Amino acid sequence: MLLSLPFFVLNLKQQEATMKKIYVFDTTLRDGSQGAGMSFSVDDKIKIAKALDAFGVSYIEGGWPGSNPKDELFFAKFKKLKVNLKNAKLTAFGSTRRKGVKASEDATLKAIVSSATQAACIFGKSWDLHVKYALKTSNEENLQMIYESVSFLKSKKIETIFDAEHFFDGYKNNPSYALACVKAAAQAGADFICLCETNGGALPSDIQKAVSETIKEFPKMKFGIHAHNDSGCAVANSIVAVEEGCVMAQGTINGFGERCGNANLCSIIPSLQLKRGFNCVPQKNLRRLTELSRYVDEIANLTPNDSKPYVGRNAFAHKAGVHVSAIERSSETYEHIDPCVVGNERRILVSDLSGKSNVLSKANELDIDIKDKPEKLKTVIETVKNMENQGYQYENADASFFLLTKKALETIKPFFTLKSYRVAVEKNTSTGNIVSEATVKLDVRGKEEHTVAEGDGPVNALDRCLRKALIKYYPAIKEMALTDFKVRVVNSDANTAAKVRVLIESADSSKVWGTIGVNENIIDASWQALSDSVEYKLVKDKSEKRG
Amino acid sequence: MLLSLPFFVLNLKQQEATMKKIYVFDTTLRDGSQGAGMSFSVDDKIKIAKALDAFGVSYIEGGWPGSNPKDELFFAKFKKLKVNLKNAKLTAFGSTRRKGVKASEDATLKAIVSSATQAACIFGKSWDLHVKYALKTSNEENLQMIYESVSFLKSKKIETIFDAEHFFDGYKNNPSYALACVKAAAQAGADFICLCETNGGALPSDIQKAVSETIKEFPKMKFGIHAHNDSGCAVANSIVAVEEGCVMAQGTINGFGERCGNANLCSIIPSLQLKRGFNCVPQKNLRRLTELSRYVDEIANLTPNDSKPYVGRNAFAHKAGVHVSAIERSSETYEHIDPCVVGNERRILVSDLSGKSNVLSKANELDIDIKDKPEKLKTVIETVKNMENQGYQYENADASFFLLTKKALETIKPFFTLKSYRVAVEKNTSTGNIVSEATVKLDVRGKEEHTVAEGDGPVNALDRCLRKALIKYYPAIKEMALTDFKVRVVNSDANTAAKVRVLIESADSSKVWGTIGVNENIIDASWQALSDSVEYKLVKDKSEKRG
Repeated sequence: MLLSLPFFVLNLKQQEATMKKIYVFDTTLRDGSQGAGMSFSVDDKIKIAKALDAFGVSYIEGGWPGSNPKDELFFAKFKKLKVNLKNAKLTAFGSTRRKGVKASEDATLKAIVSSATQAACIFGKSWDLHVKYALKTSNEENLQMIYESVSFLKSKKIETIFDAEHFFDGYKNNPSYALACVKAAAQAGADFICLCETNGGALPSDIQKAVSETIKEFPKMKFGIHAHNDSGCAVANSIVAVEEGCVMAQGTINGFGERCGNANLCSIIPSLQLKRGFNCVPQKNLRRLTELSRYVDEIANLTPNDSKPYVGRNAFAHKAGVHVSAIERSSETYEHIDPCVVGNERRILVSDLSGKSNVLSKANELDIDIKDKPEKLKTVIETVKNMENQGYQYENADASFFLLTKKALETIKPFFTLKSYRVAVEKNTSTGNIVSEATVKLDVRGKEEHTVAEGDGPVNALDRCLRKALIKYYPAIKEMALTDFKVRVVNSDANTAAKVRVLIESADSSKVWGTIGVNENIIDASWQALSDSVEYKLVKDKSEKRG
Repeated sequence: MLLSLPFFVLNLKQQEATMKKIYVFDTTLRDGSQGAGMSFSVDDKIKIAKALDAFGVSYIEGGWPGSNPKDELFFAKFKKLKVNLKNAKLTAFGSTRRKGVKASEDATLKAIVSSATQAACIFGKSWDLHVKYALKTSNEENLQMIYESVSFLKSKKIETIFDAEHFFDGYKNNPSYALACVKAAAQAGADFICLCETNGGALPSDIQKAVSETIKEFPKMKFGIHAHNDSGCAVANSIVAVEEGCVMAQGTINGFGERCGNANLCSIIPSLQLKRGFNCVPQKNLRRLTELSRYVDEIANLTPNDSKPYVGRNAFAHKAGVHVSAIERSSETYEHIDPCVVGNERRILVSDLSGKSNVLSKANELDIDIKDKPEKLKTVIETVKNMENQGYQYENADASFFLLTKKALETIKPFFTLKSYRVAVEKNTSTGNIVSEATVKLDVRGKEEHTVAEGDGPVNALDRCLRKALIKYYPAIKEMALTDFKVRVVNSDANTAAKVRVLIESADSSKVWGTIGVNENIIDASWQALSDSVEYKLVKDKSEKRG
């Protein structure tokens, strides 16, 4: 079917140069964090920012420095760590100055300047109803607030995006005032004006009309679109706005955000790039879209929505017999794009034939040579499939996948073997004390090691036991630390006990790695992830020495 | 804000008569059941069909009688039970006749006739590529297949909807052939021709162009739209098609369906009816939309997606302090519709991004009277702030927030008090066994209860101990079950031990509630969430009895 392959696979670099640039503005860390159940730590935010930059978005909105201490800490830590972004500009969020206050003396605007980011995004009212009811000020004063706030930021040499909040409702209610707000920002020198569909209820034809008419009024201005999903049209509304001339698309990874979420960049980017020929991110990075989506889900500790367009586990899953047989003959009969273009894969639900290409590319990524060993490859695929059926998932557990593959290839000898463990936790409310104690019995190089330790909790106690037993054999384990721990139920089938999945993240001075454990018992799942983590450290150090 | 209330609440009956009718065609039971993990029993299907009819859709596609015994059984049982549909027509699905077979002798078409439904929906090819690769026949023979199949059903007095499969891809590739397929169905007397966006990759402007051009060619024909969500635009594409003149919208409840799902009727119906003035279902039934969505989720045994437009639990949930205080003043400032119009409700999420206004509205929502008690309110806010600093977060833990507030107001007496607990987990690799045992000592109404139990893991063992100790005092706890369990680290400050946050979700037959525990020790955090969950159940039951 070469004939009908999308054009984009042919001549990447050449095409990229001629494709119209769309500035992707990611607000996962700001508007996305407003979603129910979302809570990012400062370190989570830094991890996500790095992943977004590597993927190639243009702007990363990190938070609202004036509004809460956590966001201020994020900007401070970002600066302190000297994180070097290659593609994106870190952006601070805020609002126009308060009524009756000078821009230069406004706390929010000063906090933006202090955050020392290259770019700022400030929202201001463009719906007269809001000026009256929320701001409780005059329409004229609001225009001044917009003009002076943008001017102030520009005078500080900060690239400024003006978010016209509730623009579409405002435009419907009082078009000339909504346009006056846009004009105030434009005259003050805003670099972009982003039209915000804040309440999320607009339908595509509303957007089409308002965007085309607005752009006609300001033909030289660069416009953006910021949509919410309250009528289920956020992605469509963003695409329509870009087709009408907007050059910036704001949104979040996986559509995180308050209520029904923000516009999902994981849908917008591939649609604009693959179906309309816009240049949103470097073409080769599109293959990392699925990985990015799942990485952010894992950091947020959310169960991924399997039916998400492009990146969901079921996005290219086929069940209907008639589809499957047609797909075998010609993939585009029931697939709108080739799944590997966005790093996803086809799944056949009746007979699970999946995995091979993933396993191969993953092994390749981890420098495990398996391609020319078809028998071994088969063993690895069988093992992975079996583990996945039990609830294991390796997207955030590279180190466990590495060990599993290496073991299937019989190329590593165990550094230690568990014989038994025991943990006990006791609490007495008369003293308020909680005591956690663990004992571990290991076979280490043929010798039995039996250790006991207390800890802050049962997992910490087990970790200490393990280290106590191993330290004299492998002193390098001193260098490593556990840096994160996450648990979630992976099945809720009423007929069997619920299994929990534990993800542990560990680090030494040179690397961060993830491991996984799955069991009905949270302690045993934790032990698996813990011992994988230590074992990975030892294998890694050994191969580094050899290498 | 009466002034700005949507027009539809004023004069229901009068308006309904003047609104343009859109025929809602539900395919939850047919295309929806193709989704990964979906499996309806015959009785499930009958329940859903009754609910759809009560809600007021026009067509209910029950299944494909020719394709599998379960679907045949469904139509047979439906007939046998003499289910009396008031609004909807039960519809059988099928395909055009096979190549080289007479329509009257085609097994699929005969099965449709045998199913004895009022209406039939048959799909046929309209993309020449598919005629060649999937059907392996000539373009001319395919036109004959369409014409003869529709004619045959019409000769049997069955209302016939022709689904033009892959119409939009076909129209792009070979518009004149796609239109020839439509013409064949129209000439044979099809009652509706439904344009199918089978691969789901189209964007709204593709749909707009193809639909408007097609309708221009056949001005007297009634057209429908059938969209899939592979580019995240199924809802928008359906709405655009209706705006261009389609009078039938096909889709599924909650967007169930293969890959990324079908177009979600729970989004399409309220948007068309509330924002465009179309008449999709009887106006008064719109209030049952949220209930219908959750009912179907429950029958499908799927965890509802809380961020679904209109009907999701978070669709009207507010977290940002600035939104909450504005909402209190004027609801439409951050809500695109009044939630009660679709049977949903507003929720205020309490989180670290919030302030006084959030706490107040949350208390109000939970029926805790605190507004006129400024001293007590201050105490609650202090307590919440203090708990949040320790890592507690209440947006997914309504029940813990409720208990905390009630306790701050000193209005509840404890049902039980912990004196001590102890859990032990032992694993021995020589047997492979893992044993988890817990003991709990409680004071219950002045008596000491000391219980022991084993479990699948330490938390399950603690849960069993707690129930054992309480059951004779509070037999109602039998009715409740833990339905979800999540853990994550809430701080990763190197200077202190990491704390973990446990979220537990519980349910009885009437309610679902969330509780939270935070501690350095995962066992103690779990205990807190567990005992809050049981305590909430007891408080809730008591107040229900009183109420």
